[in-house]
Amino acid sequence: MTAFAESELSCDAFLGGHLRLFQPRDGYRAGVDPVFLAASVAAQTGQSVLELGCGAGAAILSLGARVPDLALTGVELQPGYADLARRNAAANDIALDVVEGDIAALPQALRQQSFDHVIANPPYYLAGSHSPASDAGRATALGERTPLALWIDAAARRLTHRGYLHMIAKADRLPDMLAACDDRLGSLEVLPLMPRQGRAAELVILRARKGGRAPFRLQSGLFLHQGSRHPGDRDHYLPEIAKVLRQPAPLPWPGAG
Amino acid sequence: MTAFAESELSCDAFLGGHLRLFQPRDGYRAGVDPVFLAASVAAQTGQSVLELGCGAGAAILSLGARVPDLALTGVELQPGYADLARRNAAANDIALDVVEGDIAALPQALRQQSFDHVIANPPYYLAGSHSPASDAGRATALGERTPLALWIDAAARRLTHRGYLHMIAKADRLPDMLAACDDRLGSLEVLPLMPRQGRAAELVILRARKGGRAPFRLQSGLFLHQGSRHPGDRDHYLPEIAKVLRQPAPLPWPGAG
Repeated sequence: MTAFAESELSCDAFLGGHLRLFQPRDGYRAGVDPVFLAASVAAQTGQSVLELGCGAGAAILSLGARVPDLALTGVELQPGYADLARRNAAANDIALDVVEGDIAALPQALRQQSFDHVIANPPYYLAGSHSPASDAGRATALGERTPLALWIDAAARRLTHRGYLHMIAKADRLPDMLAACDDRLGSLEVLPLMPRQGRAAELVILRARKGGRAPFRLQSGLFLHQGSRHPGDRDHYLPEIAKVLRQPAPLPWPGAG
Repeated sequence: MTAFAESELSCDAFLGGHLRLFQPRDGYRAGVDPVFLAASVAAQTGQSVLELGCGAGAAILSLGARVPDLALTGVELQPGYADLARRNAAANDIALDVVEGDIAALPQALRQQSFDHVIANPPYYLAGSHSPASDAGRATALGERTPLALWIDAAARRLTHRGYLHMIAKADRLPDMLAACDDRLGSLEVLPLMPRQGRAAELVILRARKGGRAPFRLQSGLFLHQGSRHPGDRDHYLPEIAKVLRQPAPLPWPGAG
């Protein structure tokens, strides 16, 4: 797959319409995860941010829509998605440098740069552990072509000293994520995202700092939906979560500020 | 240190007085952690339980006080604490087999047995990372003489197929605990214990099953105290937690039953 035809694309509103993204109708389609990822990053105007595996740009452009004047770079393996990310950046008037390349062997130009922040929303399923997606691009975006440890290694290499990695993943990947963080990364924090009270975490956001030395912290986590049972309204988010998804607003990270 | 003199001991009430334990006044003194550990184990009458590093017996005797007719074994490195555990078992009329030995090299008799449950509340501080305790026995009980991985290895070896390990530790040890669980253990679950809403986890209970194959689960966790600020009353536990500490009652493990 190199480029999507117009008929293959939909244009979808994110952040309450502050961001509009072209996405393949049948390929990998961003949900709330990249929005939560972007909202967790305390990036300041003027800082540089690299997204590993940026797809059509949902995470990094959500961050660009919230924090002005960031130097944004996305690396994406699949040319069709890289094209979409460029188009989405232009359509939303956000400066974004999109580089085609493999996380496991970043292009030379990228390997000479370092970033204040690296973000990633790696594929969810272990290769072989799920039924193959009918769409090849979607299969690459969802499947684990590249082991999690390579994503974290690439992030550790590209971060400036004291720079931050933020990574969102399904909660069952937490042991692998933690195991992949070697001595270069420290001050690890995990923010669990629970669908509602009494339910296990569905997603976790890992924050790690290059050269950080603080002990590991397991934050008490955020509930996404009100009440202890599903009210039948898929959109019934708690007010502070709705703000993150519709404004854009930063995710309330416990202990900060 | 071999045995404590009577004058060195205090007799303290646990589980609302259902359990009374002799403990050294100046040595390692059990807090709520061993009680939470015992309360997390869904042991059934007739099953066998091994505690690694049982000290004066707070955890395994709390379990014995809640569930009748368990076959309880504790292994303890320090003879003085092993003696106390025997004395405490007898004083509370709970059958407990106490074996003196090192987790890293269990006595032959123990190595020929397997258990339905293994529990452990390993020492908290990395050797060298804290100021030395003035009391040598306390220093051994608190310091990390034996790396966490050896505790988990000993547990995995001693568990029956489909048996459960429960381990409680400070939350900052979670990455080490997870890293120490190899292929023999699966169906890992982590239950975070948070002092109150909005605060990071202080303790975590790890549940693992020998031969388990379910994905890792990060439970939403339990708050111990009411409200978002400390009311100045150290004893102000939430009702379901107070029940665990004072009855004895099982810890409400999410998703169970």
